[in-house]
Amino acid sequence: MNIPIVVYFLGWVLNIEAIFMLFPCLIALIYGESSGFYFLGTSVMCALLGWFLTHRRPENTIFYAREGFVSVSLGWIVLSLFGALPFFLSGEIPAFEDALFEVISGFTTTGASVLADIESLSRCMLFWRCLAIWIGGMGVLVLLLAILPLAGGYSMHLMRAESPGPSVGKLVPKVKATAKILYVIYFFMTVIQIFILLLSGMPWFDSLTMSLSTAGTGGFGVLNSSAASYSPFQQNILAIFMILFGVNFNVYYLLLTKRAKDALLSEEVRYYLLIILASIALITWNTRSLFTDFQEALHHSFFQVATIITTTGLSTTDFNLWPSFSKTILLLLMFIGGCAGSTAGGIKVSRFAIVIKSVKRELSSLIHPRSVKMIKFEGKPIDKAILRSIYIYFITYLFIFTLSILILNIDNYDMVTNFSAVCTTLNNCGPGLEQVGPAANFGFLSPVYKYVLMFDMLAGRLELFPMLLLFWPRTWMKNQ
Amino acid sequence: MNIPIVVYFLGWVLNIEAIFMLFPCLIALIYGESSGFYFLGTSVMCALLGWFLTHRRPENTIFYAREGFVSVSLGWIVLSLFGALPFFLSGEIPAFEDALFEVISGFTTTGASVLADIESLSRCMLFWRCLAIWIGGMGVLVLLLAILPLAGGYSMHLMRAESPGPSVGKLVPKVKATAKILYVIYFFMTVIQIFILLLSGMPWFDSLTMSLSTAGTGGFGVLNSSAASYSPFQQNILAIFMILFGVNFNVYYLLLTKRAKDALLSEEVRYYLLIILASIALITWNTRSLFTDFQEALHHSFFQVATIITTTGLSTTDFNLWPSFSKTILLLLMFIGGCAGSTAGGIKVSRFAIVIKSVKRELSSLIHPRSVKMIKFEGKPIDKAILRSIYIYFITYLFIFTLSILILNIDNYDMVTNFSAVCTTLNNCGPGLEQVGPAANFGFLSPVYKYVLMFDMLAGRLELFPMLLLFWPRTWMKNQ
Repeated sequence: MNIPIVVYFLGWVLNIEAIFMLFPCLIALIYGESSGFYFLGTSVMCALLGWFLTHRRPENTIFYAREGFVSVSLGWIVLSLFGALPFFLSGEIPAFEDALFEVISGFTTTGASVLADIESLSRCMLFWRCLAIWIGGMGVLVLLLAILPLAGGYSMHLMRAESPGPSVGKLVPKVKATAKILYVIYFFMTVIQIFILLLSGMPWFDSLTMSLSTAGTGGFGVLNSSAASYSPFQQNILAIFMILFGVNFNVYYLLLTKRAKDALLSEEVRYYLLIILASIALITWNTRSLFTDFQEALHHSFFQVATIITTTGLSTTDFNLWPSFSKTILLLLMFIGGCAGSTAGGIKVSRFAIVIKSVKRELSSLIHPRSVKMIKFEGKPIDKAILRSIYIYFITYLFIFTLSILILNIDNYDMVTNFSAVCTTLNNCGPGLEQVGPAANFGFLSPVYKYVLMFDMLAGRLELFPMLLLFWPRTWMKNQ
Repeated sequence: MNIPIVVYFLGWVLNIEAIFMLFPCLIALIYGESSGFYFLGTSVMCALLGWFLTHRRPENTIFYAREGFVSVSLGWIVLSLFGALPFFLSGEIPAFEDALFEVISGFTTTGASVLADIESLSRCMLFWRCLAIWIGGMGVLVLLLAILPLAGGYSMHLMRAESPGPSVGKLVPKVKATAKILYVIYFFMTVIQIFILLLSGMPWFDSLTMSLSTAGTGGFGVLNSSAASYSPFQQNILAIFMILFGVNFNVYYLLLTKRAKDALLSEEVRYYLLIILASIALITWNTRSLFTDFQEALHHSFFQVATIITTTGLSTTDFNLWPSFSKTILLLLMFIGGCAGSTAGGIKVSRFAIVIKSVKRELSSLIHPRSVKMIKFEGKPIDKAILRSIYIYFITYLFIFTLSILILNIDNYDMVTNFSAVCTTLNNCGPGLEQVGPAANFGFLSPVYKYVLMFDMLAGRLELFPMLLLFWPRTWMKNQ
């Protein structure tokens, strides 16, 4: 393990955080909030420490897969530790584990909150929660790749470790250029959303923060009512943008480069839209008696399905009161998540599509043992090593899931609360059911419980392995 | 698909069932119960139909994997349909779906009951429930193999489809001889248990039925209190035998042939015992305040862990009232199940051991991409095709699991009831939690709900694929 190069990258993460923290300072200036000073102070602290760690490049530039994984997982932890400071130092979130939970929930685009009354936070704090989501959505190390003049083998290892989905496709041959394109698409789509929300009559602060929050599919709101007090039209805009941000960004690149036909042929996106439509139909049918008319049931089903499958987690209604059938569908959607290469969480549609094909192939191979065919996805055969890693991903996911639930159960809350809390954090969604439902929050949980969920949020966002490797002794052994 | 040969095998299944049904007739004779006539009648019906289907051997003897799978899955369905008749015809279980549920629960060694008052059943009916468990424990087609003068490629295909565990090891080169050895070990261990229970002072009918029920790790009792009204000493005997029947039968064969050293080295058995010890320790600690002293907590924890990991499902106490932590451990034990090649259900210890090794290997391969090693189990490297089928098994398991829960949720019972009902039937355990807990039963559920659980019991007992292949169009297509 080449520690100096990892530390060097952590320094750059701090530099970037120092810059991002200037934005909430600006918001504080606009609203004349004194709590902006905490952002300024933390920003200066980050910048100084960052400068100290990056002013000299380490001589040993060996950078393999494991350096990539460790840089990413430690990078996210450092980002969160410093990101929590303004909440904590200002006293607006008095307990440090709560401040940390809140900011990890932001960076990992989960959107689960420990706060009962978010409207009591100052504007700059509310803005920082949503900006954290936006930063975490596309990934902070991808941003590093896009802007830093790095040469060598760093880039692919870093990008692989941070990007969601079973395999990272480079859009263009160079990783740096790919990272830039992704961020540019991300930026402009967010700007378009802000603009449309402003046109719909939403206040500018809400338009800005809600756009950051949906672009990263995180789901922090700025009102206690989440998205319930916006007009149905504004809610629909939010839902449509959530669905758009849950689409594989490759598709937008193809559209931009006028390859609309290739974009429309994307297998993953077609499944994604199909699952959305089917879920809306089933839930509208199941909840029809809860609403005054069909249209209202359809509206809420649409919003809830969009917000849960993209793992955003905003809400317009307390779906904890819905029938078990609808709640189970929503839980399943959390697991499925969005497309690979989007900002959404969950296991990803492509992984599900590939394992379903694997099950079909296994059944075929049982009755025709000699004709085992290749599995194709998006028109291309899938490499055996990738298939294996997808299977192992599912199994690892199950282990982290059950182990988390087991630890949480020591606190003896009801089983649905524990199950849905792990489900919603590991999938980076936000609200769970029962005591952690959309109308409740995570504040009442014990610190141990919260740290387990923080681990789950980070593990979920970084696709399990980078976080696990931190606890794997062989990662830290000397190069053989 | 060679239909005539499959029908021929179904005929033999009926012949065997005709013979087994004579045993409850004997019990009815002893107790002077008129309901014995229903067994006699069904037995005659099975024998006639069986004779008709088997009196001429089909000319086309083509018998491949798919004929094996279909014979096994249809064989179990036919066995259950006729096995349910005495319950139904006698009116002791008035609804046919209830009678079918009860007998499938027996044959699949689940032990989940629809009956609130089992003591109201006549003795011969109680005996038939337990005998069904004993038959299902080792498998009816394995029995066919052991006694029928069959030559050709049938045997391995049948045994593979019916036997539990990731891969069937032949004890001796011939499948027929292997099947015989397994049944002989099974028979004598059961006899020993009956004998020990008699010595402990248990009535002979209870000794007989409880032995059949624990040997097949099914868990039907003959008292409303399940195993709670037996003495602690008798409960310990039951628990020890459950654990013994959850061990891979290969180990007993090794012991019989004086290869004790090989037997003791069995990796799977060591993990199995380790999980049992660890679970007992954790649950004793977690439930200590519920009992008068440490010894009582230990006793109940020991019995409950033994009964759940072997998926027997007897109970000495209502563990639905235990803390969530203990309940979650019990749920996890249901999933783990016993050893491959035992009569226990669940996913099996060896499958878990192998996937944990796979996860470790994946982590290693992430940091050292060029050194992917073979996975070893029981000292031997595992074939890639077997590894793949284990991964797919887990994933298929998950799909059947979630689909079942989704369907059950339409009835809008609470989520823990639905979750644990699927968990306990798919793993062939017996009691669940909440409304289907150890102090409750499955009788109140709607017919659709029951049929879903029946499918899950059969799918669980036959290790998923044989049942799935019934619904797979390619199984029924013409040979290409």
